[in-house]
Amino acid sequence: MKIAIASDHAAFDLKADLAQWLADIGYEVVDLGPDSASSVDYPDYGYRLAQAIGDNQAALGVALCGSGIGISIAANRHAAVRCALVSEPLSARLARTHNDANAIAMGARLIGPEMARACLAAFLDTPFEGGRHQRRVDKLSQPQLNQEPA
Amino acid sequence: MKIAIASDHAAFDLKADLAQWLADIGYEVVDLGPDSASSVDYPDYGYRLAQAIGDNQAALGVALCGSGIGISIAANRHAAVRCALVSEPLSARLARTHNDANAIAMGARLIGPEMARACLAAFLDTPFEGGRHQRRVDKLSQPQLNQEPA
Repeated sequence: MKIAIASDHAAFDLKADLAQWLADIGYEVVDLGPDSASSVDYPDYGYRLAQAIGDNQAALGVALCGSGIGISIAANRHAAVRCALVSEPLSARLARTHNDANAIAMGARLIGPEMARACLAAFLDTPFEGGRHQRRVDKLSQPQLNQEPA
Repeated sequence: MKIAIASDHAAFDLKADLAQWLADIGYEVVDLGPDSASSVDYPDYGYRLAQAIGDNQAALGVALCGSGIGISIAANRHAAVRCALVSEPLSARLARTHNDANAIAMGARLIGPEMARACLAAFLDTPFEGGRHQRRVDKLSQPQLNQEPA
């Protein structure tokens, strides 16, 4: 399975760590950059990741920045992306069971590399539960902003 | 200042608690529902919140669901919304200083009401830093997904 990974400069080292770990456990990793720790703008890389998922170049995505906030907002601009910002494995599991999340965001300044691996492992190991959650996930793919709650 | 608040059923009680707290400290609260704890779909309420911010009916938004993940994804579908999912006040502060976040998401099943208030207080008390962060925030409002990193 192909997993795309992207970051900003603040998360460059964490990106390298997680990319290596993913490769070690058998995933094909698509590193979307950046290629150095020079300052970049997180939206550019969040959009790159979103496009890779939207175009089916990768089944899942890992989005990293200093807090995880900025790059997760950017990734979620794309209706094909369901990017969950997490800092511990329970959220990573819920993102899969309830939201069928296809991307996970984490903050390199907020959690350490072992916690990040634990979150990512939980994310990768947890199936979507379906059922009533499917209807809600479908609505995330159809953001008609004027629809009334139902 | 007007603050819109929306949730799903799982966060109905937390919504009531935070709405009251916001009113007590002087904010005008726009409660976008739901009006009961009956089961609803979080995307409907996330989109409602996004629309309220996009239409300038509220300056800021509070988005709540079980984990905060689903409703934050929904809110961030709207290019006018920068919704930060947080579970502690440091992330709430960074969401303001770096991302000029105009919405905060929290998970009622993951954090308690006092932590939620502390996050919201940090969010409300922290100004945007501007500077180099402004360019990145501007890019979040212009999600042209094919743009190359620059």
